[in-house]
Amino acid sequence: MRIALDAMGGDSGVAEVVAGAAQYSRRPGATLVLVGQRDAIASVLALHTHDPSRIEVVHSPTFVPMEADARAALDAMPEASINLAARLVAEGQADALVSAGHTAATILATSRRLQRLDGIRRAALAAVYPTQQLHGARQDPFGLMLDVGATVGASAEELVGFAVMGSAYSRIISENSRPSVALLSNGSEANRGTPEIVAAHALLRQHPSLHFVGNVEGLDIARGSADVVVCNGFIGNIVLKMLEGFYEVAVHLARDASHSSLLWKVGLMMLQDGIQQIRSVTDWRQYGGAPLLGFDRVVIKAHGRSNARAVRNALKVAERAVAGKLVQQIVAGMAQPSESPP
Amino acid sequence: MRIALDAMGGDSGVAEVVAGAAQYSRRPGATLVLVGQRDAIASVLALHTHDPSRIEVVHSPTFVPMEADARAALDAMPEASINLAARLVAEGQADALVSAGHTAATILATSRRLQRLDGIRRAALAAVYPTQQLHGARQDPFGLMLDVGATVGASAEELVGFAVMGSAYSRIISENSRPSVALLSNGSEANRGTPEIVAAHALLRQHPSLHFVGNVEGLDIARGSADVVVCNGFIGNIVLKMLEGFYEVAVHLARDASHSSLLWKVGLMMLQDGIQQIRSVTDWRQYGGAPLLGFDRVVIKAHGRSNARAVRNALKVAERAVAGKLVQQIVAGMAQPSESPP
Repeated sequence: MRIALDAMGGDSGVAEVVAGAAQYSRRPGATLVLVGQRDAIASVLALHTHDPSRIEVVHSPTFVPMEADARAALDAMPEASINLAARLVAEGQADALVSAGHTAATILATSRRLQRLDGIRRAALAAVYPTQQLHGARQDPFGLMLDVGATVGASAEELVGFAVMGSAYSRIISENSRPSVALLSNGSEANRGTPEIVAAHALLRQHPSLHFVGNVEGLDIARGSADVVVCNGFIGNIVLKMLEGFYEVAVHLARDASHSSLLWKVGLMMLQDGIQQIRSVTDWRQYGGAPLLGFDRVVIKAHGRSNARAVRNALKVAERAVAGKLVQQIVAGMAQPSESPP
Repeated sequence: MRIALDAMGGDSGVAEVVAGAAQYSRRPGATLVLVGQRDAIASVLALHTHDPSRIEVVHSPTFVPMEADARAALDAMPEASINLAARLVAEGQADALVSAGHTAATILATSRRLQRLDGIRRAALAAVYPTQQLHGARQDPFGLMLDVGATVGASAEELVGFAVMGSAYSRIISENSRPSVALLSNGSEANRGTPEIVAAHALLRQHPSLHFVGNVEGLDIARGSADVVVCNGFIGNIVLKMLEGFYEVAVHLARDASHSSLLWKVGLMMLQDGIQQIRSVTDWRQYGGAPLLGFDRVVIKAHGRSNARAVRNALKVAERAVAGKLVQQIVAGMAQPSESPP
């Protein structure tokens, strides 16, 4: 197995991404193809123990900066690292693509090179987020939500595609043999929501291979009532960023509180272990990145703020997705004879 | 000033609602018109100190149960308490309506009886929610969001109406002379979001009387970056219920944690005061209810779970809205000459 890694992307640039690649290479796994500035990659690799037999480098002179306009940058720089990495994967020189770089550029470069799977009209970006309930055989404290930003609106048929893709991903990554799938809506009844949600509900009820549990509401996000939550990218983006905002404010409040009184300080010290536990669960940015689903190759978008450990985790997720035959599982899910609702 | 109160609605029924009315009557304010079963109201009033000169009762034999279908129930029971209360307000026998009952029935009964204001094509339900930043001269730890459930989708013009109504409400209730208003979207740029959001952004930028600060993202909800956040009712419902879900899970986790170890128990005890402070801010259901904006009378929907204190607060909010001339402020905001975007 070979995984192409955009070595230049991410807020911390080549240093964290290549350090994560070095970490990954120290245990059995795929061969990595690092795409980026050869000298910069070599100087980071020199600092970290790694298995040189498992790391190849493909030189790319430029990359898309985080603040650039995706379309303009990709057009202006055909040799940008994400363009080259996507091309390698499209040509079959790698089985998966991992990038911590510019999200829109990753989606656009991928859409231009890779084939969309039969029946999938729109790719979707899926994200894991912390929930109260655990999920699957691995007892993951994370639910999966899609789309969180590859689309704005989504038709009923596109939402059904998201449900199939999310279920396949959950089966492989959370080892969840029968993941529950729900539509995010403003009420649990079948007739609640936008016209697209109501129509998708009717289609999903008839779907032969999905474990569709109906609509969930905003209340169910933190609870984690469903393993896979399906929505359009506009809503998914708002929900995901709300989650980030909550944890940001909670951390800020805790910091403020610890400055305010001796009693508080001592109390917080005694809770240190627990706070650390909660932090490690809620810091889901380190969990391994968001899969971009719907193409004929595995694509994992790691968070821009990924550190070395997060990059290593994203590589492990890509490896698991390829080994678990994610693409083939999605194709099989889409090929199910779908009856029309009565 | 006279306020009509649906005495029968709410999860706790007549006991909490009438107790709240009794509390309210003990300090100077409006005269209350309690609409509901005369005997039930009298027996609750007998239990609580109240000012009988400030409480009138209008008998209604029936009411809409919380689990009923709103339309069917209102049609079947023309004498239901919410129907009679809305009629009293429509006929000018009261200046405001307060209900802790069935939300959809309150909205529907109100829509059928009251006049929509000029230029307002859709009424909106607004809700306060806790934020990190404080708002207005009262330093409220709450932001305002609308619509949170009177609509599903909303056109650009309807979103502009929501912005005008939310600003007027914030000026009066938070004593915020120049409330900042934002659109909730999936990016801060003017071209991000659904077609309705992009068009509303262009209209709001040209609006002469609003302090429009552009788009906010999910991250800004917990921060409270804007005083008034505008969205359609589908998104608003999901956001508001997500907030409820978070606090529900946080309370649950804290309870679990306190059972787990002696160190945790002691730590949590030392933080008791702070936890109580946070709880009183976050228990925003007690804050006074959600205004239903867009009609020629003040309508306040208190949370179904309201206790007596929450009902009293909702009555105080209704009184402040009438005294501050909320309806006239909205009319003035809508009448501003609106230039078309370049």
